[in-house]
Amino acid sequence: MKVGIMGAGQLGRMLALAGYPLGLQCEFLDPNQDSPGGQVGPLISGGFDDRECLARLARDAAVVTFEFENVPMAAMDLLGKCTPVWPPAEALGASQDRLDEKTLFRRLKIPTPEFAAVDGLEDLRRAARRIGLPGILKTRRLGYDGRGQYPLRRLDDIEPAWSLLGKAPLIYEKFIAFSREVSLIGVRSTRGETRFYPLCANTHEAGILRYTTAPYRNAPLQKQAETYLKRLMRHFDYAGVLTVEFFVRRGQLIANEMAPRVHNSGHWTIEGARTSQFENHLRAVLGLPLGDTAAVGHSAMVNFIGTLPAAGNILRLSGVHFHSYGKEPRPNRKLGHCTVTLPSREARDRILRTLLKLRA
Amino acid sequence: MKVGIMGAGQLGRMLALAGYPLGLQCEFLDPNQDSPGGQVGPLISGGFDDRECLARLARDAAVVTFEFENVPMAAMDLLGKCTPVWPPAEALGASQDRLDEKTLFRRLKIPTPEFAAVDGLEDLRRAARRIGLPGILKTRRLGYDGRGQYPLRRLDDIEPAWSLLGKAPLIYEKFIAFSREVSLIGVRSTRGETRFYPLCANTHEAGILRYTTAPYRNAPLQKQAETYLKRLMRHFDYAGVLTVEFFVRRGQLIANEMAPRVHNSGHWTIEGARTSQFENHLRAVLGLPLGDTAAVGHSAMVNFIGTLPAAGNILRLSGVHFHSYGKEPRPNRKLGHCTVTLPSREARDRILRTLLKLRA
Repeated sequence: MKVGIMGAGQLGRMLALAGYPLGLQCEFLDPNQDSPGGQVGPLISGGFDDRECLARLARDAAVVTFEFENVPMAAMDLLGKCTPVWPPAEALGASQDRLDEKTLFRRLKIPTPEFAAVDGLEDLRRAARRIGLPGILKTRRLGYDGRGQYPLRRLDDIEPAWSLLGKAPLIYEKFIAFSREVSLIGVRSTRGETRFYPLCANTHEAGILRYTTAPYRNAPLQKQAETYLKRLMRHFDYAGVLTVEFFVRRGQLIANEMAPRVHNSGHWTIEGARTSQFENHLRAVLGLPLGDTAAVGHSAMVNFIGTLPAAGNILRLSGVHFHSYGKEPRPNRKLGHCTVTLPSREARDRILRTLLKLRA
Repeated sequence: MKVGIMGAGQLGRMLALAGYPLGLQCEFLDPNQDSPGGQVGPLISGGFDDRECLARLARDAAVVTFEFENVPMAAMDLLGKCTPVWPPAEALGASQDRLDEKTLFRRLKIPTPEFAAVDGLEDLRRAARRIGLPGILKTRRLGYDGRGQYPLRRLDDIEPAWSLLGKAPLIYEKFIAFSREVSLIGVRSTRGETRFYPLCANTHEAGILRYTTAPYRNAPLQKQAETYLKRLMRHFDYAGVLTVEFFVRRGQLIANEMAPRVHNSGHWTIEGARTSQFENHLRAVLGLPLGDTAAVGHSAMVNFIGTLPAAGNILRLSGVHFHSYGKEPRPNRKLGHCTVTLPSREARDRILRTLLKLRA
């Protein structure tokens, strides 16, 4: 059975590897011929808006899905005429635009930082006055890993921020002084079956996820986060994995952003949960029964960014698994990750400290 | 980094899938163009004795390994001139011939059923008298899944057994009335690091492995089995996964046969152990540190033979994972397996009973 995947990055690669045991053959569409996905499965090399390539991807596919947010909506429309496409286009659309996303959060009573649309310098001045400083000016679209953002600490930052980002539609958000960033990964199948992984805690460096620990055990926050994801899933009549990142402030969750796909903060589930997010995403979009999402121990996932340590230095550590994405090293590029899963949190944290010191 | 694999059956397929996260690209040599391995990685389609194909497999490979026993020794010699080949040819050779194998077991003081070489009808009569009945006449080479065997219960069985199998070199073995068949999977790296999985218990139907449960907790037998495998590993200066099947009789182990490769009775390790036999085989032949072999719960692996149940009927069961090999159904063909891993033995056994009743 064939599954089409828009994008052949590491998320697509891990989807394809999870698909093989299920008897699935994932085929990718990606303009990059030497992609992480293309190394493990068939690749259609072409643009995401190429009608001929889209038709090939959809041909004989039981379902088409995507592994990144910036799939053109026109491509979703075209694909949807030939084959089922999950997650739904409306969820993808909301995730592509920070203003739409936060407006939806507000509508569904999911707490979110105060925000305002910014379409001119005057808008920005007004937003900074009304919402206050510090805050962050962000492009509404195409930002990731901290790109397309400008932090505003004083009124003097307004003009430089505007001159750097002002060419695109923007959103101004209040800066949230948070104690922790967590994310919840949920999955809902086309038959409506729904499961949630335990919350995980995320630590960023220079705007890029550096490591995740799981499970983040906090029953009230877990329940609250699940309530919010259920609202989103119902709203979209969702199928697939859905991720929402939250700030934790004074014991409350504030939604930062959603991703209608498998997520970097869920990589620990390959070894650390009974069923990985990748397998569950495939089960969900195909209408198969979902797998158990319970954690099997205490896990930490560490991203390797820019350089990759030698495999031997990673694998000599107890309980550690290594995932290379087959990419050429480049600054700020996610080249691979490793996961440690151990029965106790203390043992996990000891190995985590060593992993964070590993260099190429 | 490239790893060459002789054979592209399901064992090769699962090796390749374990290799991708480690940044390895497995390439197969197999005459069958539509093989389970060839669906997940590059395949050189050709005979195992084709010099040109063997040279291609060895080219740029960090190591060549194999996934079945009947690799021609001439191919091992040729490959060995171009690249490291593990496990060692001597271990492969011993496993190809039941007489050599049992003679080696005896030499290393590993208990084995009484046996005798049979090269003529008179040999067989003499063996049956000396060793006694019941017994089994087996071809020395090329037998698997119960093929090439003839059970002898009475003296009258001698002539029909001889007329069926007498064209090939044979071995007569005493029939062992055993209470249990278990297997031990061990792994030794090219650097000499050695680890063992917990023993598992195997149940056959019509000569083919039907299901395995693990761990089979018996500390004295575990220790005894590890001692025997260590002797074999030292003898061969072994690297890779090594499997030995034992009968348990009156609390003692009697070695039935060895396989110098990953083994069907080790499939449970994908979900049921901290590191799978497939990943550890690759780590071992590449000289990487070995992964933890501890079980993470109670597992059972069920083979699907001849027919494959619908994925949905398997996946709806709690704690169950499915592995399709991408093969066309055919009687007596192993088409896939599933593994259940659960925290308690009782829960595992409940699901196992359901799995054994699943039909296509």
